[in-house]
Amino acid sequence: MNISVLRLDHRRRRDARITTHVCLTARAFGASEVILSGERDKKLMENVEDVRERWGGSFKISYQKNWDNFIEEWQKNGGEVIHLTMYGTPVQEAVPQIQKSSKDKLVVVGGSRVPTPVYKAADWNVSVTTQPHSEVSSLGVFLHMLMDGKEFELEFEGGKLEVVPSAEGKQIITHEEFDDQKL
Amino acid sequence: MNISVLRLDHRRRRDARITTHVCLTARAFGASEVILSGERDKKLMENVEDVRERWGGSFKISYQKNWDNFIEEWQKNGGEVIHLTMYGTPVQEAVPQIQKSSKDKLVVVGGSRVPTPVYKAADWNVSVTTQPHSEVSSLGVFLHMLMDGKEFELEFEGGKLEVVPSAEGKQIITHEEFDDQKL
Repeated sequence: MNISVLRLDHRRRRDARITTHVCLTARAFGASEVILSGERDKKLMENVEDVRERWGGSFKISYQKNWDNFIEEWQKNGGEVIHLTMYGTPVQEAVPQIQKSSKDKLVVVGGSRVPTPVYKAADWNVSVTTQPHSEVSSLGVFLHMLMDGKEFELEFEGGKLEVVPSAEGKQIITHEEFDDQKL
Repeated sequence: MNISVLRLDHRRRRDARITTHVCLTARAFGASEVILSGERDKKLMENVEDVRERWGGSFKISYQKNWDNFIEEWQKNGGEVIHLTMYGTPVQEAVPQIQKSSKDKLVVVGGSRVPTPVYKAADWNVSVTTQPHSEVSSLGVFLHMLMDGKEFELEFEGGKLEVVPSAEGKQIITHEEFDDQKL
């Protein structure tokens, strides 16, 4: 099952860090790409590509001005759309349903105000708890549940850096010479 | 098992939104309190208290200038310390160990540079994937796994607002009159 993430309504000034965390969470938890909408943000896209360069894998980031067309095309091409919102069906009920189909999944992560057409277009509106918290933790927990924990076995090939899990301290393998200021 | 979250090295300007998301994630996923360290941030603390007022429960937020003393006291009082870091023991291996003890847990969430003494003091250094992503998603997924999904059954009593899960659109119960601009 291929998973893409669509981030709506990005605002360059206000959202740079949160959206970066959304992108890196998508990558770490097994999505193959993120599509940004809202304001175009070249620097953010370069930062995410820089992480992929250093840490491996084939995660992609792109920009789409018109998210409504993009969602429509996604569904026309046979893909399904999951909108993460605190108002939706509880994730623990939705995930077993969502897992039944192997169709490509587009996970939509909103900004501050998500327009009604997103709720209407989505195949599932899914809530990760019914409390306000964060699109970053919602996405992480949703993908963890959708992947059934298999994200922990993912290999990110071709990276320059690799963590060796350690009970105490930091251990990193460097696969290539690199500027260690950028770690 | 009581869970507290210690957020290290908060910087008022740069981290306001990320730290707010850390606090709200802690609350939504069953922690009873967050302790902030780094720069004091009255506005952030008020915002988190405001969420508790509106959405219920008894989540607390406080400030500790000296996190090192705080960690030491925590352990002296019989509590255990879990430091979330991408360099630690994989969460899927650590959680079953951590769950064996019902002692109070302090989950430490770092800032940009975590000093070595934190790694040394922690009973567990735990990684949520070995890839760089976000302290917000790390905390969410860690608490979800530690709670075994029981966070979805939590009741947040005394709130003014309550979400009614819905497959399409928004449904909110208002338990009291409130200024709906603040939703």
